[in-house]
Amino acid sequence: MNKNTRLILALDVTNKESALRIARDVHEYVDAIKVGYPLVLATGLGIFNDLSQYAPVIADFKVADIPNTNRLICEQVFKAGADAVIVHGFTGHDSLDACVEIARKSRNGKDIYVVTEMSHPGGVEFFRPVAGSIAKMALDAGASGVVAPATRLNRVKEIRSIIGSELSIISPGVGVQGGSAADVIKAGADWVIVGRSIYQADSPKNAAAGILADMQN
Amino acid sequence: MNKNTRLILALDVTNKESALRIARDVHEYVDAIKVGYPLVLATGLGIFNDLSQYAPVIADFKVADIPNTNRLICEQVFKAGADAVIVHGFTGHDSLDACVEIARKSRNGKDIYVVTEMSHPGGVEFFRPVAGSIAKMALDAGASGVVAPATRLNRVKEIRSIIGSELSIISPGVGVQGGSAADVIKAGADWVIVGRSIYQADSPKNAAAGILADMQN
Repeated sequence: MNKNTRLILALDVTNKESALRIARDVHEYVDAIKVGYPLVLATGLGIFNDLSQYAPVIADFKVADIPNTNRLICEQVFKAGADAVIVHGFTGHDSLDACVEIARKSRNGKDIYVVTEMSHPGGVEFFRPVAGSIAKMALDAGASGVVAPATRLNRVKEIRSIIGSELSIISPGVGVQGGSAADVIKAGADWVIVGRSIYQADSPKNAAAGILADMQN
Repeated sequence: MNKNTRLILALDVTNKESALRIARDVHEYVDAIKVGYPLVLATGLGIFNDLSQYAPVIADFKVADIPNTNRLICEQVFKAGADAVIVHGFTGHDSLDACVEIARKSRNGKDIYVVTEMSHPGGVEFFRPVAGSIAKMALDAGASGVVAPATRLNRVKEIRSIIGSELSIISPGVGVQGGSAADVIKAGADWVIVGRSIYQADSPKNAAAGILADMQN
């Protein structure tokens, strides 16, 4: 995915028509569209191909299974037209390796992003103590990048210091959840992920343009 | 789900016709059928309803997201006809609570099973140290049970000592992965989960019957 706008849309709607309408509206303002299970379960894997005409698609499936199941999930996701998958790392290095292996085998170099920490309150209970180790594992495994929460800038900085410049950081939690896009980029993120502030706006396009303007200030 | 045979089929195929044929063949020998993302992504959520005519369906989605996304996933899974969902606990108590809340709100009392530890090599890296805490959290949250690996009998015993008699243990890893069904039940599991030994057999029905005979010895 190209680093043009540094903005990723989290398209957390569950209706196909809304999803396509919003994607069409904002596609010039985003580098990628992130899609989760709720939309895919409601509409089918075909949504990846539909959306990929507007922007590269990141499947936010938070894949967290044994290596063989991870492999099967990633194979289906890439085959359906997604360019990247978000996976968990706490299931261990072999589960992650299986995902990276499938990404490398796929045509046009697909990406794996590893969750290092999550932005909700429960994210501090079991995740926080191992976030650094998971980031290190993502680096060793040859993942494309990690996911770190925009709501905790010091964590983004810490994760950046662990992974160096080799891996990308994509960072959710900007907008309704409180993170500032400009601050997160300054803290070391490569892309900010914005959901509700864009897809719930009367004009998703204007909302996205507004966030980009803020980022450039 | 009723405790009749104490056997759950892990239906890890990705083809609808095979899935239905195997389910039809073995349904008298199993208390439930466990289905993962590879089959659902390949065939659609409708597979839950198709399979539920043969046995209760457990959606092995290893749900591991923020509370709101977990909620949306569980809602769709129950609505599509599954009776239970397997979720992760390492995402913290609020993510788990969201799943339990949806299960309780659903008609006919749906079940949530929480992964406490996994059977693959990488399962010891981040999971093992927190398995006990996750089991305790599952108990506190009011989940129906936990998932513990049949390949590590001492872990099944330990998890049983933490959760007491209130929660069920479902235990994968029997058969090809090396666990013995009879031993796992003795160690404290309520159900054993068997996949390849059944669905890859020339006669899945005979294979299931054989495992049941072993369990009764």
